[in-house]
Amino acid sequence: MPEMNGDDERQKRMSIVCWSNDLDRVWPVMILATTGAASGLDVNIFFTFWGLRVLQRNEKRTTGQNWKQRGESVMDRGGTDHLKLSKMHMGGMGTAMIKSLAKEFKVASPTELLGMASDLGVRLYPCQMTMELYGLTKDDFIDNLETPLGAASFIEMAAESDINLFI
Amino acid sequence: MPEMNGDDERQKRMSIVCWSNDLDRVWPVMILATTGAASGLDVNIFFTFWGLRVLQRNEKRTTGQNWKQRGESVMDRGGTDHLKLSKMHMGGMGTAMIKSLAKEFKVASPTELLGMASDLGVRLYPCQMTMELYGLTKDDFIDNLETPLGAASFIEMAAESDINLFI
Amino acid sequence: MPEMNGDDERQKRMSIVCWSNDLDRVWPVMILATTGAASGLDVNIFFTFWGLRVLQRNEKRTTGQNWKQRGESVMDRGGTDHLKLSKMHMGGMGTAMIKSLAKEFKVASPTELLGMASDLGVRLYPCQMTMELYGLTKDDFIDNLETPLGAASFIEMAAESDINLFI
Repeated sequence: MPEMNGDDERQKRMSIVCWSNDLDRVWPVMILATTGAASGLDVNIFFTFWGLRVLQRNEKRTTGQNWKQRGESVMDRGGTDHLKLSKMHMGGMGTAMIKSLAKEFKVASPTELLGMASDLGVRLYPCQMTMELYGLTKDDFIDNLETPLGAASFIEMAAESDINLFI
Repeated sequence: MPEMNGDDERQKRMSIVCWSNDLDRVWPVMILATTGAASGLDVNIFFTFWGLRVLQRNEKRTTGQNWKQRGESVMDRGGTDHLKLSKMHMGGMGTAMIKSLAKEFKVASPTELLGMASDLGVRLYPCQMTMELYGLTKDDFIDNLETPLGAASFIEMAAESDINLFI
Repeated sequence: MPEMNGDDERQKRMSIVCWSNDLDRVWPVMILATTGAASGLDVNIFFTFWGLRVLQRNEKRTTGQNWKQRGESVMDRGGTDHLKLSKMHMGGMGTAMIKSLAKEFKVASPTELLGMASDLGVRLYPCQMTMELYGLTKDDFIDNLETPLGAASFIEMAAESDINLFI
């Protein structure tokens, strides 16, 4: 993209694949995204597979069009208020403890960070294919999302990014 | 970085580390790889650690030269037909449900995607060190793989890539 | 690829986020880092979340300032000698088997690799925010670490890297 005096001139870009809805992965996604945007980077997040559930409204309980999709949505509740640690969850105790430590040390919650991301201009892209797989529709999601994206468009975006992370 | 006619001229390159043989990770590896290749990118996948099992022939049951390697191969069966979800596997029920949803929504299976990847010119590299660790040989693998690669060669490749992902 | 004075002149840089303290993730972090440094790359590792525990001295048993932090440190013991596989751990049997295979095939242990990384000039950065969360201090860590880093500084570093990996 840059012609003359190198691409140091243009805004740096970071693209993150948010593949997981585990608390311990969504946290770094959101901290890196908001910090990046606050530092002046152009930041994109592609929410795919388990990660798509992060964009679900917290009050939505069951989602999906058929029994398989509904069943999956019950087993793996969506929304940033319902994330669990991938390890040390210990029936909720470990997750609660880490959340409480985070609060004590003024680390914003995923829900707060997602709001901040939106405010800071981080672009949040739901994965089109996962939406179909889960039977999720626009109404299941929080506001201010970008148009759903396919893998080809994500790759195009990533090919022009300075930082790509699969989290 | 380049002066005049920029590196927009050259083919973009994506290098993926396929570290896992979990269904939910192999799927994005394969979807990104095939989509990337179909979009004209030069795509390389480095199969390492658990991920090396992805390249194993589906009909191979036990592999390895000594009892430890054989034991490991029995506990963690290789081949794209035998992948399991990293979470919500639920004794096979969750994995079967997601596979059935994928079929319903015309998402190709990992086995089909691996074949497509090969056809589209995606280069599939087994990790040399993991082969030794598992006692896997050329005969255990599917056809059309590249020469096994060490970490140094992978890094050299990644340093010239526009997209690097560890999945 | 670039002709004249391109960026082939400058040293390639690799930045790795070491997010996990699972044996099967720390191993690739350390192998890639040491191999990269040995190949002449400028290598940085940012140890965050579970990954911060990798930098803990092996002899430290309990860490933290309050009971939550102490409790967490007991449940998830730090130090490269105490890493467990993320799957197939099987009460220690699987982890022991893989370690024994690694020894047999001359793959250096994480502890050895961490020492080598330091010797090869790999820069090891503890995540500032995680240190506060866990209540870890300089005394809990091995020697030769860089000054703790925040997310903003890590992003700045990553934006100038040729290879970025979140492991």
